[in-house]
Amino acid sequence: MKVQKIRLGLIGGGMDSMVGIVHRIAAYLGERYHIVGGVFSSDYSASKLLANKLDLDQSRIYPGIDELIEMELSLPKDQRIEVVSVLTPNFLHYSVAKKLITAGFNVICEKPMTFTVAEAEELEVLVAEKSVAFCLTHTYTGYPMVRQMREMIAAGAIGRIQKVDGQYYQGWINRFIHDVDKRSQVWRLSPDKVGNSCCFGDIGVHVFNLIEFTTGLQIERVLADVNTLYADNPLDVDGTALIKTADGVSGMIRASQIATGEENNMTLSVYGEKGGLKWEQENPSLLFYLLEGQPVQVFKPGNDYNHSFAQESSKLPSGHPEGLGDALGNIYSGFAKAVRGEVHRKGSFPGVADGVRGVRFVEAVVESNTQDQAWVRL
Amino acid sequence: MKVQKIRLGLIGGGMDSMVGIVHRIAAYLGERYHIVGGVFSSDYSASKLLANKLDLDQSRIYPGIDELIEMELSLPKDQRIEVVSVLTPNFLHYSVAKKLITAGFNVICEKPMTFTVAEAEELEVLVAEKSVAFCLTHTYTGYPMVRQMREMIAAGAIGRIQKVDGQYYQGWINRFIHDVDKRSQVWRLSPDKVGNSCCFGDIGVHVFNLIEFTTGLQIERVLADVNTLYADNPLDVDGTALIKTADGVSGMIRASQIATGEENNMTLSVYGEKGGLKWEQENPSLLFYLLEGQPVQVFKPGNDYNHSFAQESSKLPSGHPEGLGDALGNIYSGFAKAVRGEVHRKGSFPGVADGVRGVRFVEAVVESNTQDQAWVRL
Amino acid sequence: MKVQKIRLGLIGGGMDSMVGIVHRIAAYLGERYHIVGGVFSSDYSASKLLANKLDLDQSRIYPGIDELIEMELSLPKDQRIEVVSVLTPNFLHYSVAKKLITAGFNVICEKPMTFTVAEAEELEVLVAEKSVAFCLTHTYTGYPMVRQMREMIAAGAIGRIQKVDGQYYQGWINRFIHDVDKRSQVWRLSPDKVGNSCCFGDIGVHVFNLIEFTTGLQIERVLADVNTLYADNPLDVDGTALIKTADGVSGMIRASQIATGEENNMTLSVYGEKGGLKWEQENPSLLFYLLEGQPVQVFKPGNDYNHSFAQESSKLPSGHPEGLGDALGNIYSGFAKAVRGEVHRKGSFPGVADGVRGVRFVEAVVESNTQDQAWVRL
Amino acid sequence: MKVQKIRLGLIGGGMDSMVGIVHRIAAYLGERYHIVGGVFSSDYSASKLLANKLDLDQSRIYPGIDELIEMELSLPKDQRIEVVSVLTPNFLHYSVAKKLITAGFNVICEKPMTFTVAEAEELEVLVAEKSVAFCLTHTYTGYPMVRQMREMIAAGAIGRIQKVDGQYYQGWINRFIHDVDKRSQVWRLSPDKVGNSCCFGDIGVHVFNLIEFTTGLQIERVLADVNTLYADNPLDVDGTALIKTADGVSGMIRASQIATGEENNMTLSVYGEKGGLKWEQENPSLLFYLLEGQPVQVFKPGNDYNHSFAQESSKLPSGHPEGLGDALGNIYSGFAKAVRGEVHRKGSFPGVADGVRGVRFVEAVVESNTQDQAWVRL
Repeated sequence: MKVQKIRLGLIGGGMDSMVGIVHRIAAYLGERYHIVGGVFSSDYSASKLLANKLDLDQSRIYPGIDELIEMELSLPKDQRIEVVSVLTPNFLHYSVAKKLITAGFNVICEKPMTFTVAEAEELEVLVAEKSVAFCLTHTYTGYPMVRQMREMIAAGAIGRIQKVDGQYYQGWINRFIHDVDKRSQVWRLSPDKVGNSCCFGDIGVHVFNLIEFTTGLQIERVLADVNTLYADNPLDVDGTALIKTADGVSGMIRASQIATGEENNMTLSVYGEKGGLKWEQENPSLLFYLLEGQPVQVFKPGNDYNHSFAQESSKLPSGHPEGLGDALGNIYSGFAKAVRGEVHRKGSFPGVADGVRGVRFVEAVVESNTQDQAWVRL
Repeated sequence: MKVQKIRLGLIGGGMDSMVGIVHRIAAYLGERYHIVGGVFSSDYSASKLLANKLDLDQSRIYPGIDELIEMELSLPKDQRIEVVSVLTPNFLHYSVAKKLITAGFNVICEKPMTFTVAEAEELEVLVAEKSVAFCLTHTYTGYPMVRQMREMIAAGAIGRIQKVDGQYYQGWINRFIHDVDKRSQVWRLSPDKVGNSCCFGDIGVHVFNLIEFTTGLQIERVLADVNTLYADNPLDVDGTALIKTADGVSGMIRASQIATGEENNMTLSVYGEKGGLKWEQENPSLLFYLLEGQPVQVFKPGNDYNHSFAQESSKLPSGHPEGLGDALGNIYSGFAKAVRGEVHRKGSFPGVADGVRGVRFVEAVVESNTQDQAWVRL
Repeated sequence: MKVQKIRLGLIGGGMDSMVGIVHRIAAYLGERYHIVGGVFSSDYSASKLLANKLDLDQSRIYPGIDELIEMELSLPKDQRIEVVSVLTPNFLHYSVAKKLITAGFNVICEKPMTFTVAEAEELEVLVAEKSVAFCLTHTYTGYPMVRQMREMIAAGAIGRIQKVDGQYYQGWINRFIHDVDKRSQVWRLSPDKVGNSCCFGDIGVHVFNLIEFTTGLQIERVLADVNTLYADNPLDVDGTALIKTADGVSGMIRASQIATGEENNMTLSVYGEKGGLKWEQENPSLLFYLLEGQPVQVFKPGNDYNHSFAQESSKLPSGHPEGLGDALGNIYSGFAKAVRGEVHRKGSFPGVADGVRGVRFVEAVVESNTQDQAWVRL
Repeated sequence: MKVQKIRLGLIGGGMDSMVGIVHRIAAYLGERYHIVGGVFSSDYSASKLLANKLDLDQSRIYPGIDELIEMELSLPKDQRIEVVSVLTPNFLHYSVAKKLITAGFNVICEKPMTFTVAEAEELEVLVAEKSVAFCLTHTYTGYPMVRQMREMIAAGAIGRIQKVDGQYYQGWINRFIHDVDKRSQVWRLSPDKVGNSCCFGDIGVHVFNLIEFTTGLQIERVLADVNTLYADNPLDVDGTALIKTADGVSGMIRASQIATGEENNMTLSVYGEKGGLKWEQENPSLLFYLLEGQPVQVFKPGNDYNHSFAQESSKLPSGHPEGLGDALGNIYSGFAKAVRGEVHRKGSFPGVADGVRGVRFVEAVVESNTQDQAWVRL
């Protein structure tokens, strides 16, 4: 199959996996990838079932990573999978990515890349040796206003940086942490599954990445106080890391999974000699620009005043949240059920009767106005 | 080509068209549609070019709607396009939809469905006669929190409704309206292109639809004062419609395209005997529930407390805005450029070096804590 | 008693009256008034009791308005009450104000000034004839950011105005309106007590005033649809008034007392050829400035960038809400109880032990830093 | 002069002093204090001038603290100043408070109470020995929603506390810090004037106090990294203090005066086993209550659902920000100028003509509605 799009394979992310859905959507959105196949699950038949649902060629679904590598390498180069997304459980990221890179595949890898620095550096060397492209999904760097923040800082909008404050607060582990049995069953609290850190490895590192991405600074030293809450819990669920950059800028990274009631409250504030910039992940379309002695300015995606990097990163006109595409997607999906005769809710999509009523409304508005603001029935 | 997914065709929405991109994304997101072909543009070669970019079969790209209908009908039923999205300029919606329905295709139609009530009613009859499915893209009804609002009202959360307030304010026409030449070139101000209304036909009708969708009420009468701003401008760019429902509920729909500086500020507030519900399109993940004598409650998508209709309408865990998928999509797209050796910005996607730094950070955090909060270098 | 401050008398506003407290506070805040006495209540002994609490001279407390006028006029001019605030029930505003003006007193009058236009015009003539000063307490015009809005519009910040949208939504009548007995006991629903309008007379008129105050426009015509909700309720509790100004600007004033769950949600949005300005009473320290094609700017009190009229209207540095004074007032009041040996809550005011702890904290911070970030006990 | 109110004296807070105005207002607001006199300024004639403006008895204005103590003690007890507010420069707080306490006066003291722990403990002992009342003005504990937060935590609303996060960010020192000459002239950066800390002594300590006030926890240990930004600047302008309480709860206090563009951004978030509570000083009327698995609840002052401590701490009905009193105060002050024939701005207060227009508006609304929504001229 010769295609213009990039041939993409997926390892992991099977049927009910949230990460699988999100990565497929990410591949669809830019219209640059064609999903070919992969190893969706350690259960081969489950992989095939998903392939069927997605209308993929069953011959490109493999029982394991080794089979994928062998068979794909046997195909002509212009049919072969070009990029593989690694969406497996965390403890497999390193070994799977290593095999793929070694075999010459370009790799998109979920976070964490590895459990140890030695492994990470090994992958770094390998990527260079094999001349493959490698992408780590620090998703938050893809937000238009995060990119705008980066470009504004680079352009000197806030001057030399003198203070950095990053936060990532969630509350989900609170449901499990207070009961020995419950917490022992949380895979994120098992060193076998996630390495030597829970809270900082999972979410603190996102803030770290975001700080370096937006500011261009390199964090050089940390002093951390982390909290396991219970002595028999081996991994951190909360903590603060004081940071210092190579240029002597101070700041801190705060992270928690026991900030009860918080959902995904990541924030970043950066202050410089001329002003500050502030962003919140739960309200990602607003970037606050604090300029000394002036009214606060609120930047939003889709406006011409943004840097081209931010502009290219949003598809919609200003005022339309990115979720608008998802809203329309919900309507398409609701309609799909109707088309296929499946059970669907009333209200899943607007129908022709809604159209009739809308046209009647507009006609009534026009008529009322023509009649000097008389009441008109629809 | 036998597929599980629904075979989708598109009329209009060519190369640079925002509406085309948004509809294709909507089709991808739910993984229920397979785009087959269509008539993307009145320029046949432009259609073919887009088909090439999207890896579509060129044989399913047609010079016009008549050819599409004729050729598709000649295909076996299990290969034929099942649903056609009508994304043409407004004045063609009626005629194109009519042809498609008559030929037995299911139709997704952009708004406005028609220019006149007579045409709308004609389509309504035709849809029934031909037993096709028809979807009008009132996109805003697809937001999870709009659906939550509908279900809460239906379940009596605010009691009997006594007041409805809807707004849709934009400012974009302000750039054109004050200059005769400029405004004469705005297609939305030309009755030939959009019918008898600009502001209410384009955006006021969305509020109308949203009110009926969320409340279950039927608006029976309107009294409207609309504003063309200049005598030689034939169409409304602003106005207020007082409304009354069949049950005697009062309210109003306010719409403007000269609310200078507003982007897409649609809001809906509904008040009943027990409480109120408020939603804003520019902040679509928040639904405010006002219950008499109690603290205001803020509902957000992805939480178990939501109605199943809302739950099914969001893909992500709570705290992750729908735009997260777009953020990851931006990273996938940036990486695509790297894979294909295209020019791409630094920062388009995180790479292996970012991975190494992240692992170093987490390791340093753990070590600092182990050393009773000592400073540790990365 | 010879004083620099203005000698102020009060009619109404006795012991438990919210309006009395607010007016006395308003008199204190600017340090320009000295409260002398008045007629606080129709119950003479209650008046005297309040006078005692306020340390006023009992000889300046009168049984009625006529006695006040007679006795005060008999005093030397430099001892006489100069200004009288009329805080009586609404139906007395006109007659009391008329007597006071006729007698040559300056008057501060609560809203509504009168029930009929004829009465209002009569007072207007009288004020001119008697050369007294007269103040109607449209309180919202005193907010710093409302004054900033007025000055920005006057200075052309948004260009020629083309759209006005004002709202005042409350929900308090919902508690009473649905029950015949309850609603018959609400004085605001009794024409004897409030005249011919409840919702528009009480709150809609504030929006009207705010529009004319901020824009400098004169509203010339209205078209109103108001709502009594029940046929046997004589007065409006909700409604919308379409408005047109002398210059042809359109807009609307929306008011409701059955917007269940709303507290005091007054908003004003004004749009012109160059931009828009938006303000909300429940968040009165923020003024949003929408300038076409630019980031939204947020103006806040206490900043040098504000107009001098706004600057003079706020006492505190930027970032300190006006409620800060009230917070400190609460602490002073809590301490008063301790001083007088009255029962008071723990936490009513910070004491010396809190001071000790604070100094220990600061010392520990400094010491920890000196010791290269060691843990230090307080 | 025999009065019901408490006789209050003031040391410091002369003519143009912000702190003086705020303390006088705080004394007026609760109507429990009567300002008698004091030492407003080290310049005796300036003190007398202010006394004149405030209509105070000149005999109670003293050249210095010693004269005040001597003369007041010579007065009969029922005429003597009962409470003295110490509003002097910081370095005098300790010595002045000590003299006053020793002489048996009740004291309200501005922050910092002293520069050293030894001095603080000395005052603590003295207060006990002399049986006087002592109040330290940690103003933020007076906000209604801070008090509500305290009572909710005490009542178990969030369960056992597991995480505390406090912030106080300002940006004002940024204007001075980057220039040697400018920063050397900032009194807050001079150890002689403020002791051993700038940022933590001035604002960090407020967060410390607020944490202990709201949570009832005792902070036991701190680890602090503070920042002077320049080597020749002797005092901290920024920093983070990790904290641990006696019960092992972790958290941090962040403070900065170089968070450029921030005004007075103090926040407090407290998380427990059952939920979280969040408050921001710049938006002090909102208290966010995060309860696991439920919609976020927003508490606001003036509602019956609040604890009586919060209820008693707000004077106004719900929906009216405390700044409303200040707004009315501005109108009273504007009117004062008119009464005294001083120059005043148009718009300083609404007049009788505004009253006439308002009544016309209401009458027009009623008439339009009576005429089935016809246009009616004012």
